[in-house]
Amino acid sequence: MGRDVPTLVAGAREGRTRDIARLISLIEDGSPEVPALMRDLASTSGRASVIGITGSPGVGKSTTTAALITAMRARGQRVGVLAVDPSSPFSGGALLGDRIRMQKHATDEGVFIRSMASRGHLGGLAATTPQALRVLDAAGFDVVLIETVGVGQSEIEVAAAADTTLVLLAPGMGDGIQAAKAGILEIGDVFVVNKADRDGSDSTMRELRNMIALGVRGPDAWSPPVVKTVASTGEGIDRLVSAIDDHRTWLMASGELEVRRVRRARDEVEALALALLRRRLEADTGSLRLLAAAEDVAAGRTDAHTAAARLVEDA
Amino acid sequence: MGRDVPTLVAGAREGRTRDIARLISLIEDGSPEVPALMRDLASTSGRASVIGITGSPGVGKSTTTAALITAMRARGQRVGVLAVDPSSPFSGGALLGDRIRMQKHATDEGVFIRSMASRGHLGGLAATTPQALRVLDAAGFDVVLIETVGVGQSEIEVAAAADTTLVLLAPGMGDGIQAAKAGILEIGDVFVVNKADRDGSDSTMRELRNMIALGVRGPDAWSPPVVKTVASTGEGIDRLVSAIDDHRTWLMASGELEVRRVRRARDEVEALALALLRRRLEADTGSLRLLAAAEDVAAGRTDAHTAAARLVEDA
Repeated sequence: MGRDVPTLVAGAREGRTRDIARLISLIEDGSPEVPALMRDLASTSGRASVIGITGSPGVGKSTTTAALITAMRARGQRVGVLAVDPSSPFSGGALLGDRIRMQKHATDEGVFIRSMASRGHLGGLAATTPQALRVLDAAGFDVVLIETVGVGQSEIEVAAAADTTLVLLAPGMGDGIQAAKAGILEIGDVFVVNKADRDGSDSTMRELRNMIALGVRGPDAWSPPVVKTVASTGEGIDRLVSAIDDHRTWLMASGELEVRRVRRARDEVEALALALLRRRLEADTGSLRLLAAAEDVAAGRTDAHTAAARLVEDA
Repeated sequence: MGRDVPTLVAGAREGRTRDIARLISLIEDGSPEVPALMRDLASTSGRASVIGITGSPGVGKSTTTAALITAMRARGQRVGVLAVDPSSPFSGGALLGDRIRMQKHATDEGVFIRSMASRGHLGGLAATTPQALRVLDAAGFDVVLIETVGVGQSEIEVAAAADTTLVLLAPGMGDGIQAAKAGILEIGDVFVVNKADRDGSDSTMRELRNMIALGVRGPDAWSPPVVKTVASTGEGIDRLVSAIDDHRTWLMASGELEVRRVRRARDEVEALALALLRRRLEADTGSLRLLAAAEDVAAGRTDAHTAAARLVEDA
């Protein structure tokens, strides 16, 4: 039952929402048809601008995403959104409410919104997100926004795999700048201080600018701008869109766009290759040998490093 | 500078705190001496009871850990604590405050408290936590408590690798039971409704018991008890300790202890084997081939699945 992959791909290329959604479901479910689907799409990718949006819970990622959709639609661009949810038993649930807030775009044919969960399939989100991205690209979306819930390392990696990565902060969140210090400074191409009508936004701006200045990487390097927004009223969204456009111009002029896309493909190929190796390790005789090794380690006859090295040698 | 590994191991076996701490630092830093260390410790492990403590932020994991330390010290047991911090740029920071709350144990020679961060080393927390556990085991601790910050999947896996896994909830946290539904029911050996002096604790207890009853796995299976505590005053901690003891008695009588330890060793060996395979994929000619594959994928000459399969075949 159901239509076959080539028919769905043809429908997706014409922008048919249901066919796009079905293809992404195949990817999310780890369908055996995914490799064939990816072969079909391989030659048609790379047109869409990919924008990652990340930041701590509560900074206003979904409101900002919704405001960006409005701004991009106003200039006639078609916009796809992938909301990445790591499906942690301890953090799930927030996303559904966020999606409901985007309902005003629900009836717009030029907008496609989809949440992606990691269901532990081949390669995880590191592999499924770029695959879904490729479907949206083939479907002719001009922009794809990848919004992450923003709690774990893997989500940061997903967001950072975009052409342009927006890092959102909000004033008065205390650990905002601390978080920035801890690692997000390196991944941000554009920083957004959202909820800028709150107390403390000027000092957050200042601290952030100082830290960015410390990290400047040379005269031709991109110097990440800091944009103040109040996404709920739309304030500053025009400046944010300009900053995103500027970054894209720089990406193309500097050759960095190509560098990033090769890096993204490398991460995807590596995630898939490791998943294939894991599958091999767990299959057939591999799993018996893994179990025997585990019994030896548990009984103290050998240690885990020695056992692992032996397994890999014979793999 | 520094003493060599055999000297540190000898010191750790005599319970010398500084030597234990240095060995765990070697593990955390991914020192090249770790494989030799693990060979040294392989035959001396398996005596300590390993108790995992997990639950959402705010349920009182650290207060409960501190109360358990007090109770176990009162009966003369030596207690090691590993507080697992995933070091996510977006979630770090809470642990330091928690550790300060444990200061009353800071001068007790029979207690060792250490936080473990994942620094992206060989095998990640799935490999470093069992290694640190082995050091504490060799140092003669009777009990090792593994407390996780409780946000991501990997931490849940770390906690679930214990002999006995405590899952903490608190009344009135809204998503507590939802979270339970989403996956923690399967990993809990003992459930704790902490902050039981708050409104709603009876209904949380009832809901939890009903869900556990639905999941009972046969007449000889362990039926997870639900214990009410107010860890900040010590109320209910005696019942919690009894429930942990009961679970241990069942683990030994049923043969499940051995099953769990083999499973834990299997996960550790697998994590290390995959890390070795990844290292091989990234090394020397592997990395050139990975880059060439990524360029082909980025240019649309092939797809990521085909490229990954080819890499693995030639590995």
